Parts: sequence; C-alpha cells; structure tokens
Amino acid sequence: MTPVPHPTALPVSPPAVTQLLATFVASHPSRGWSDAIEQEAHRTFLNWLGCAIGASTHAAVDAALASVREFEPSAQATVLGRNERVDMGSAALLNGISSHLFDFDDTHWKTLIHPAGPVASAALALAEKTHASGRELVDALVLGIDVACRVGIGLYPGHYDQGWHITGSTGALGAAAACARLLKLDAKRCAMALGLAASQPIGVREQFGTMAKSFHPGAAARAGLNAAVMARHGYTASAKVLEAPRGYLQVLTPTPNWQQMIEGLGTHFEISANTYKPFACGVVIHPAIDGCVQLFEGGLKPDDIARVELRVHPLVLELTGKSAPSDGLEGKFSIYHGCAVGLALGAGGEAEFSDEIVRRSDIVALRNKVTATVDSTVREAAAGITVHCKDGRRLQVFVEHAIGSRERPLSDQRLVAKFDAQVTPILGADRSTRLIELCRAMADQPSVQDLCRASASALPAMVSRAASVAA
Amino acid sequence: MTPVPHPTALPVSPPAVTQLLATFVASHPSRGWSDAIEQEAHRTFLNWLGCAIGASTHAAVDAALASVREFEPSAQATVLGRNERVDMGSAALLNGISSHLFDFDDTHWKTLIHPAGPVASAALALAEKTHASGRELVDALVLGIDVACRVGIGLYPGHYDQGWHITGSTGALGAAAACARLLKLDAKRCAMALGLAASQPIGVREQFGTMAKSFHPGAAARAGLNAAVMARHGYTASAKVLEAPRGYLQVLTPTPNWQQMIEGLGTHFEISANTYKPFACGVVIHPAIDGCVQLFEGGLKPDDIARVELRVHPLVLELTGKSAPSDGLEGKFSIYHGCAVGLALGAGGEAEFSDEIVRRSDIVALRNKVTATVDSTVREAAAGITVHCKDGRRLQVFVEHAIGSRERPLSDQRLVAKFDAQVTPILGADRSTRLIELCRAMADQPSVQDLCRASASALPAMVSRAASVAA
Repeated sequence: MTPVPHPTALPVSPPAVTQLLATFVASHPSRGWSDAIEQEAHRTFLNWLGCAIGASTHAAVDAALASVREFEPSAQATVLGRNERVDMGSAALLNGISSHLFDFDDTHWKTLIHPAGPVASAALALAEKTHASGRELVDALVLGIDVACRVGIGLYPGHYDQGWHITGSTGALGAAAACARLLKLDAKRCAMALGLAASQPIGVREQFGTMAKSFHPGAAARAGLNAAVMARHGYTASAKVLEAPRGYLQVLTPTPNWQQMIEGLGTHFEISANTYKPFACGVVIHPAIDGCVQLFEGGLKPDDIARVELRVHPLVLELTGKSAPSDGLEGKFSIYHGCAVGLALGAGGEAEFSDEIVRRSDIVALRNKVTATVDSTVREAAAGITVHCKDGRRLQVFVEHAIGSRERPLSDQRLVAKFDAQVTPILGADRSTRLIELCRAMADQPSVQDLCRASASALPAMVSRAASVAA
Repeated sequence: MTPVPHPTALPVSPPAVTQLLATFVASHPSRGWSDAIEQEAHRTFLNWLGCAIGASTHAAVDAALASVREFEPSAQATVLGRNERVDMGSAALLNGISSHLFDFDDTHWKTLIHPAGPVASAALALAEKTHASGRELVDALVLGIDVACRVGIGLYPGHYDQGWHITGSTGALGAAAACARLLKLDAKRCAMALGLAASQPIGVREQFGTMAKSFHPGAAARAGLNAAVMARHGYTASAKVLEAPRGYLQVLTPTPNWQQMIEGLGTHFEISANTYKPFACGVVIHPAIDGCVQLFEGGLKPDDIARVELRVHPLVLELTGKSAPSDGLEGKFSIYHGCAVGLALGAGGEAEFSDEIVRRSDIVALRNKVTATVDSTVREAAAGITVHCKDGRRLQVFVEHAIGSRERPLSDQRLVAKFDAQVTPILGADRSTRLIELCRAMADQPSVQDLCRASASALPAMVSRAASVAA
C-alpha cells in the first residue's frame, strides 16, 4: 500500500460520537423502541443461543476451555451446552467462540458484522453473575448491537477491505456498551467503557479457515465485558476516543462515515437490519443452495439429474470455489457441495456440512455433476440454476434473494426449527423446547438464571458427543 | 485520509516471517547470545521491576485490581509491590499497567516501543505459575523482546504515525513469544501463539493522558500469555498471519519493512537497542532536564536565576508545552516543570512529578522564569539552555544527547539507584537491596519464586501508602 499522509486537520470536525453513544447507552429508556425491534431482539437472541449450544462440543471449544482451566477460573457463569462453569469473562470468550464456529450466526447486512456473538456472549455472562432480569438483558442486547453496528457503519467499507474482521474489530465496543448498560453506569463511565474497548480491535481476515476466526467474537466479548467492569471502578480513558485524530475511527479506516454513524440514534435501531443464516456457510452461496432446495421440494431426485449449471456472481467462485472439498470445513467453501446437499437432502444446516456427508459417495457424485460459470449480470445476492435431466427435461430456478436475506427474512417458525436442530443433539428435545419457551418470554424473566441453568448440560461433553453419535 | 486501494498482488512476495519468528522462538539455544546481550537483559528486567513495584499503589492499579476481583481470580501469581495474588493472566495485566504508569520505563530507540512492559509482565506471571527457572525467564525475555521489536521495525514509522500506540499494538506478539518459549512449544505451536496474538493489536494514541495508556501494555501482556496457553492446547491460527495480504502487517501499516524485520535474526538481538529513562516523563524533554541537572550539580541555585531561555526542537512544545501544570501528570507534559525540578532539585524522578512538587510555590515561581523557543537547527534529541543570573553571569549548556539515550546509556549504578528510589518507599530498603541482588543473579535462580515472593508486600496497599507518606 502506498503511504498515506495523516491529516493534521479535518475540513469539518467530526461529531462528539463517543459522548453521543455513551449518553445513549446510559440513558435510553428501557424497552424504548417498537414492538418490531423488541421482536427482532428476541429472534437475535434465540438464533445466537442455538448456534452457541450447537457448537459447544466442537474441538475449538474443547481447546479454549482447556486453556481457560489453566487459570483456575471461578464458577460464576455457564458455558452454554456444557457442564463446566467458569468466570464470567471466560464464559464470554467461550460462548462467543462457540456461537461463531458453525458459520451459522446472524449478519447485519449493511456492515457484514455478526453482531450477537460479541454482544450477547458478554451480556449473558455478566447478567448471570449479577442476576440481571430478562428485561435488562434484552435492553443491553439492543443497545449493544446498535453501538457495534453504528461503529461498523462508521468504518465500512474501507475498514473491511483493509483486512479487518469487522465482527471482532467492532465487537468489544458493542460488548462494552451492553455490559455498561447492565452495570447501570452513568454516561461518563459508559464513555470510559467504550474508551477502553476502543483500544481493542480484534481480528484480521487472514485467520479465516482456522479456529482463530471464531476466537475474534469471543475475545471481543471478553474485552468488552472487562472494559465495562474497569470503567465501573473508575479506570479512565479518553472521552473522545472514537472521533479524535489518533482515535479509533481515524486509525482504523481511511474513510470514516461520521454522519451515517449517528443518524437516527435513539429512534432507529440497527438490530432491525439483522438477518439469520438458513444455511451453515457464508452467505455468498445461500442463493444457490436456496434454489437447489426449492428444486428438491418440487420433487426432483438426484438420480433424475444429468448435469447442473450455475450462473453466479464472481465473488462466489473467488470465495467458495472448492470443487473437491475433503472435510466439512472445506465443504462450507464449496458452491458445488452446497448445491449437492440442497438437491440431495433439501437442507444446508450444520449436519449437511459434516465430514461424513462431504465424503459420502452419492454426494461426491452429485457435486461432480455441477458446473459454475461467472455471469457479470448476476448480482451478488442472486444465482441461476439450470438442471438438465436425464429424461430431457430442463428445470430452471433463478433466486433473486435467498431465504434468510433482508428481502426474505426467516420466519419465526424456521428460526425455531433451526434452534431445535442444533440444540436437540446436545441437550435433548425436551430441553430444546424449554429453552425456546424461555427465549420467547425472555423480556419477562425476573432473572436470566433459569435460562442459563437450562442451557447447561448435566453431562460432560465426551458423553454428550457419544450419545448424539449413537442417536 | 484518502482511500487507498488494497493491492491484489505485491511486486515481491514477503518472506515467511511468521514461520521464521516461530522457529526462532522455539529453537534458539538457551543463552544463545553475547555477554553484552545477557547483561542488557538483566538491566531491562531490573528497570521494569523497579517501575512496576514503584507504581503499584497508584490509583490506576487500585482500579484495575478492583475490577479483576469481580472475576474472583485464583491466587496463582504476584501483583508486584502488593500483598494481593491473582491468576497469572490478571497478574500480567496489573504488572503491565503498573510498569508503564510513571512513564519511566524502557525505550527501544529504533521503534519507540517500551518493550519490557508486555513481555516481562507476561513472562514473570507465567514463570511464577510454572516454577520456571531464572535462566528460562531471561531466555524468554530476550526472545520476546526481539520478536516485539522486530515486528515494530516491520511496522515503523507508518504505523505509529497512523495513531497506534506501538507498545500495545506489538506487545501481545512479544508476550506470546516469551510465553510460548516458557511453555516449550514447538515451532508449529509457537506460530499459533503468534497467530492468536497477531489478531490483538492494542492501543490508540488518543488515550495518552488517561489511565488507558498504561492499560495497553498490561492488556497486551495478558493477551500474549492467553495466546500461548491456547496454542499449547491446539487452538489454531493462520501460519502466515504476519505476512499475508490480509494479515497483521499489511492491515496495520501502509509500509511494511520486510527485510529489516528479519535481518540478523538469531545473531543480532534488538534488546541491545533498549534504553532506560533517567527522568519520569517523555524522552523529548530529557535533554532539557539533563542540562538543568548539570547546572544544579555545578552549584547553581534557584535564587541566583533571573530567567532561563531554552532552545528546543518543535516536537517539545507540541508534546510538552504545558506552561501551567496543575498536577503531577500534567507536570510530565511540561518542559517548564521539567526544567524547574532539574534546576531546583537536581532530579526528575517520580518524586519530582508529584502533585505536591508541581504545586510548590518555589517550583511554580521557577517555572515562570523559563521560556522556550523553537529552533529548527536543534535536533529532537538535543536542547540548549541559557541561564541569565541576577548578578549578570550568563551560563550556557548545550545537551547533544541526554543521559539515558543510546549515545549515553545509564550506568549500572544509576539503574540500581533508580530501582532503589522507586522500590524503597513501597517495600523498604532491605527488600530493595535483596531484590537488586536477586535481579543481578536472575539467570542463576533455580526458580523465579524467590524473586516473586520478595516482590510482594506483606502489607495492604493503604498501609504502604500511609507509611510512605509518614516517612
């Protein structure tokens, strides 16, 4: 990159963003938003919880938990889906890691942030320790996600293009805001919390494909929680750290979007732009999987198929062009595999991206029938599928916007089904049903403790894994 | 800043820096350097320890410790200078904060990194828990500081100019290297440790003037220690995270210096470029204080002085131009105060930057006799002082390089005196003497535990503070 001189003076002074956000977090009224926002907060929380529990026995969580144990943590908070308890900071880390592992979490479509990971992981861990109510938790979630996404709007797109993992680089700010709210900090101390968080952008995109990618939202959750606790005890930071010349935004992006960051603050809530993945992989192949699922649901069988031709945006082959994936993780980066499971199994959940399915001979055969060509007329959010059948029929589907996108959001029923599919293998069907009910009524819970208890396993992870394999 | 396009291909591929550094950390022989390097490592450690103990009763440490207690930490490691024990990660945080608070720590002159804070704080905390030997600690210190400073060389100056606090943005990498060495990780896992650390650059310069500045080395220490422990348990990260297009260096600076980063790796050690502050404030006013101390030592008395004229580099007035400081912290950003204490007290240690001294009427009066003018012929490391005496004499001193600079390093005796002045008020003279001896023979210690025990206070901080005020 060519050197860029640092400006010594801006043509227009940026607004006092740090103070504005801090005051907002400290004083916005409880439930101070529409029913639609309140509902979206519950959807966001359910989606996050299901992902975190679903991935709780993943090797990455095992490794992270083993390292947490080296510090001999106190037993303050739940590791979702597991029987271990750790200090609230470590719980924020572990649950944040877990919630991101399946690549199945939420997406704020404007910024590509996956906001619940850092924010909900921090907020629930702190809420468990402080015995906060469900109402307070939901408030913290909405406000924290608003802060993270607004910061993301301030940074995007220059920041993401530079190589930052924006979920992690903004996450500590969202987590700090949520935790500052839970701790009932005044505006001055909310600003300190944001200040300390602003010194901790976490995550570069080179890590994609390794466990470190999931570390980012977990570490951001822990960093934000820590920042709020330190602010509570009077640890000072700059009160203008977000907007100052050598502060967060100007350090982290060449092109801060000051006005968009604060537009509608307090009346428009960014959680309204949150979406939930219907398929456990990057959104760029969702349109193709969606089309294939539609064909499956229309009665098409794999044996009917001679060949499949896809027309896709260039980004699809750039990001997900693996034609011969060897395991589940590689499968998530294969448009060919996504189509194969959509056509053969009518789904693209975590189960369809297992090592076993990726290696199954019929799936391999079906993958090999799929070709993809780049078509510059096809938008990023779209895909065209043509199936040439053995009997001469030709079937065509064009997906303008995939299910789960902003234009076609997942219904509540589909979100519940997604939750159930992830949680039942870990905690059993009855517990999944109970959690769905607790989440539905989250705002009415006098304490989050019931939910936390219900999210814990009575069994060690080894036993859970063996049981779900046997099932 | 104008948008900068991200290069899709570099003219020349960068070297495999991550692997090179990881292999170096894992396999460089113990004591694999000259006597001069071994001696510098001991000087670095002594300087760091004295600063950490000296500032251990500062309000910032109190606040950080109070927040650590919210997590109910285990009692694995010493909080230097205090009677509390916390988990090793929190000890790394607290000692890292403490070591930076007085602005009295070490400076790697090539990069402006203060390297011991993140590296020694992490290493000692881990070494205490694992019962590592003094030899292993010194090895970790040399290797960790080498990694941090080489990364800094890779980043400098574009990165610092952008607004990063380079001590914190490189610190986790140095700490991770030191801790990976202490844990005896192989090259593959050292690379994972560096990888996880590379996702955690900490600190923007807007925080200067607040407690958050000192948070940076402490948080970096903890992040690096955590990264090494996670790598130990197999938590994966990218094996080329430092050099990849969307990796650490290319994200964090417009101008990576690949070749200088790895030049002489294994034969030249960056700790050789470490220097130690003789005065408890930013290096930019050290030349002026030095000159004033020289005048004091020559017999000049404040009452003799009519006025003092300084000729200084422009940066001095930009960074330290406060003409009427109201407390100790502001005093550190006042060239006028630095000169006043140099002339009146012949020193510029932490005691000379107390609130009390800053507000003392004779010091105020002397400050008001000092004027400073910018002289573009005066280099940044130099200062000219002219004293006009009441009896008509005119005294002149020109300091080419301040005491403590690379050209005029502090002697061992001065380092010991600096240590003693900071540690005696906290732990008493006998303990200070014992610690000096333990540090001198650090490499021969079968375990670091003796030093850690000797660095702890038997008394709660409140009592220490009252005792030192009474003394």
